[in-house]
Amino acid sequence: MTHTTPSPEVLDSYFTPAVEVTLEGMREGTGGPFGATLVNSDGEIVVAVGNTVIKDTDISGHAEMVAVREACRKLSTLDLSGHVMYATCEPCPMCVAVMMWAGITTCYYASTHVDAGDNGFSDVRLRKYLDGSDTSTLDMIHLDSGREDCASIWTEFQALNA
Amino acid sequence: MTHTTPSPEVLDSYFTPAVEVTLEGMREGTGGPFGATLVNSDGEIVVAVGNTVIKDTDISGHAEMVAVREACRKLSTLDLSGHVMYATCEPCPMCVAVMMWAGITTCYYASTHVDAGDNGFSDVRLRKYLDGSDTSTLDMIHLDSGREDCASIWTEFQALNA
Repeated sequence: MTHTTPSPEVLDSYFTPAVEVTLEGMREGTGGPFGATLVNSDGEIVVAVGNTVIKDTDISGHAEMVAVREACRKLSTLDLSGHVMYATCEPCPMCVAVMMWAGITTCYYASTHVDAGDNGFSDVRLRKYLDGSDTSTLDMIHLDSGREDCASIWTEFQALNA
Repeated sequence: MTHTTPSPEVLDSYFTPAVEVTLEGMREGTGGPFGATLVNSDGEIVVAVGNTVIKDTDISGHAEMVAVREACRKLSTLDLSGHVMYATCEPCPMCVAVMMWAGITTCYYASTHVDAGDNGFSDVRLRKYLDGSDTSTLDMIHLDSGREDCASIWTEFQALNA
């Protein structure tokens, strides 16, 4: 895919509201140093948010995750295709995944995951688990037999959708 | 790490409440065919939940994500170290990542991502993006200069934490 990166002025107009709410959260001690703005296909801002991990006691409250959740709710949709994410810092794998589930295919970011790591927010362990280079950090154990209760979910699913 | 898989009776006691709430959500049309139970280090159930994607208009409302969020809130913590996730189906990369952010290091699962894919819920695109084998599905574009607004977040962060 090819993209035309927005002009510096447009980028400023996208990043500034996210940066402001992020700085506010940091000063109030309610969120970490990450912000994100989601823009629709007409170039209009849908939501501009900061990290809410502390405020919401929610380890998943990363800025991009919050932006996706708030946009889903605001637009009453699970499909954010055509929207573009502007993140103050490179999204972690969790946020990459939620963007992909939402159908977002373009994300611009400013700081990198190395910058984040230098400030004590490394996601390298997750990156290595998910790229397969170090899977020692999480034991995923397949219960390969006798889980009839779980299999019953698919039976019911197929019956409901027959 | 080595683990002793719980007995079939204990597994049943963990999976049954998640399966029940999942089936309920499917029948009411409020959630997809996925459930999860989070158990603490004493073997006690903290939360047993189903997928809430439809109910909450939240594309991130996967069972494991919901379990982590609810447990954080219930226990007033961002650290779920020592807890074990029991998922009716193999967690997607988003859910793997949120578990890792929460400090969870053990997850048992019943159905596999292939079973999920066979039922129309494939996460293979995400898996391939994150393992690097196909990054064509998401454009992550680094704005490598002139983003002083974003850099100011780190300056402020360091000042606040000096």
